[in-house]
Amino acid sequence: MSKTKNKTDDASVFIVGAGPGDPGLLTLKAAACLKKADVVVYDRLVSDDILAMVPDSAEKIFAGKAARDHFMPQDEINQTLVDLARLDKIVVRLKGGDPFIFGRGSEEAMFLAEHDINFEIVPGITASAGCGAYAGIPLTHRGLVTGVRFVTGHCRDGQHLDLNWKSMADPNTTLVIYMGLINIQKISDELIKAGLPADTPAAGIERGTTPDRRTIITTLDKLPACIERAELKAPSLLIIGKVVELSDTIAWHTHAHECLMEEDGVATDA
Amino acid sequence: MSKTKNKTDDASVFIVGAGPGDPGLLTLKAAACLKKADVVVYDRLVSDDILAMVPDSAEKIFAGKAARDHFMPQDEINQTLVDLARLDKIVVRLKGGDPFIFGRGSEEAMFLAEHDINFEIVPGITASAGCGAYAGIPLTHRGLVTGVRFVTGHCRDGQHLDLNWKSMADPNTTLVIYMGLINIQKISDELIKAGLPADTPAAGIERGTTPDRRTIITTLDKLPACIERAELKAPSLLIIGKVVELSDTIAWHTHAHECLMEEDGVATDA
Repeated sequence: MSKTKNKTDDASVFIVGAGPGDPGLLTLKAAACLKKADVVVYDRLVSDDILAMVPDSAEKIFAGKAARDHFMPQDEINQTLVDLARLDKIVVRLKGGDPFIFGRGSEEAMFLAEHDINFEIVPGITASAGCGAYAGIPLTHRGLVTGVRFVTGHCRDGQHLDLNWKSMADPNTTLVIYMGLINIQKISDELIKAGLPADTPAAGIERGTTPDRRTIITTLDKLPACIERAELKAPSLLIIGKVVELSDTIAWHTHAHECLMEEDGVATDA
Repeated sequence: MSKTKNKTDDASVFIVGAGPGDPGLLTLKAAACLKKADVVVYDRLVSDDILAMVPDSAEKIFAGKAARDHFMPQDEINQTLVDLARLDKIVVRLKGGDPFIFGRGSEEAMFLAEHDINFEIVPGITASAGCGAYAGIPLTHRGLVTGVRFVTGHCRDGQHLDLNWKSMADPNTTLVIYMGLINIQKISDELIKAGLPADTPAAGIERGTTPDRRTIITTLDKLPACIERAELKAPSLLIIGKVVELSDTIAWHTHAHECLMEEDGVATDA
C-alpha cells in the first residue's frame, strides 16, 4: 500500500467539481483549471454561467449525464478522457457538485489510473452544502443533531431502491437525499414506517444556489404531495430533519418574488 | 413560515467557509468577500496562506476556536459580530471548512438574525470533500456504498460520546468522523461491537489539503494504535468504509517525501 507514486506534477486530466450552480461557488483552483483547459468535458448539471467561464479557445464536449438519461454512457466518457489525454491535451472533466459525492469521479479516476494517465481531483461544493447555506438550513446544529447523512434516492436502472431505512430513520441525524424526486413517495413512506416521526421538518429545494431556485418547507409526510403540487424538477435536493425548522430564522437568501403558495404548512419561494 | 424577508441586499456580516486549508479551495465568492472586508474574524483552523489573502487595510480578529479550547467563547464571538456590524463595518466571519457542517455557523447566524443584522452564508469545501479528494478516497462509489455520513467525535465538555453506534455500523455507508482523535479508541471499539467488521478499511488524515498532510491507511481495529504511533494531531479526519481501499488506485496527490513507515498494513505519507 505504498504511496510513493506522484501523479500530480504533470496531471493532464483534472476531474473538477463545479459546485451546485452559482458560479461564485467555484473554487479558485477550479477556475484556474478552466482557464488553462484545452478541452472541457462537461455534464448536464454544469450551469451555463459556469460554462461561460471556459475560454473560447477551448473545445467543449457535452457528456450530458442526468440521473435517468445518460446521453454518453459512462464507459464512453472514461474512454474519451483517456483518448484526449493521449493527444497531450489539458483536459478538464467538469462535473456538477463534488466529483467524489455521487459524482462518479472515482470511476473516471480509476479508469485513468488503470491507463497510466496522470490526473488530479479538484473538490467542489456539494449540493447539500450549497443548498443548505442558501436556504438557511444548517446540516448540523449543536444540541439538535449529531451529524448528517447523504444518500441517493436514485437507483440503477431496473433495480428498486434498497436502502437501510431503519438506520436512516435517526431523528438525531440530518438526512439529505440527492436525486430523490422520483422515489419521494417511497422514501417518505419507508422512513415513517421505520420510525422517523411523520412531522419531521422536511425541505425540497430545486436549483438551490441559482436565481431560479424554489424551496418548499413542509413535513416528511406531506413532502411527496408538496413536491408534486409545486412540480419540483431535477436537480432538486431533499433535506429531512430538525435543522430544517431553523430556516425560518436563518433564511437570508430568499428570492425577490413573493411566496406563491402558503397553505397546509407549505412555503414556497418561486 | 412566509419567506418574504430579504436580508441579502445589504448583508453586513458574511459567514464564510474557508475550506480545509489549501487556499486554492476557497470559493470565488469567499475570495471576493475577503477583498471587500473591513474586519475579518477568523478561527484557528483558517490557514496562514488564506489569511495572507486578507487586505492589509482590514482588521483581523482572532477568535481561536479549537475543539477543546475556545479562546473566545461562542457568546462573545456572536456579540463581537453584532457589535462590528453596528459600526457599519463589512464583517467577514471566516471559518475552517463549511460554516454549516460542524462549524457553528448556524449559531452565529441565528444570533445575527435575532439582532436584525443582515448576513449571508458562503459555503466552503468541507474537510471530508477536501481530504477525500486529495487522498484519493471517494466518499461514495457506485456499487460499493449507498451514501456517506458525517459525525463529530468530539462532545461538549463533561459529556461522554453518545452516538447511535448501531445506526453508524452500516457497511454500505462511508463514515467520516470530524474531530475524532480524542475518542478514537472508543469509536473503534463501539463500531466493532455494533457489528462493523474489524477489518473495515480506515484512514486517518492530518491537514489533508496542505503540504504538511499525513495520511494513514489501515483497518478499523488498528486505527487507534496507528494514530497513536504516527502521533496524528488535530485537525485530522477519519474515514471508515470500503471506499478507503480505492485510495490505493486513485491516490494522485501524494507528498514528495517518502513513506516513513509501512508495516502491519499501515502506510503513512509524512
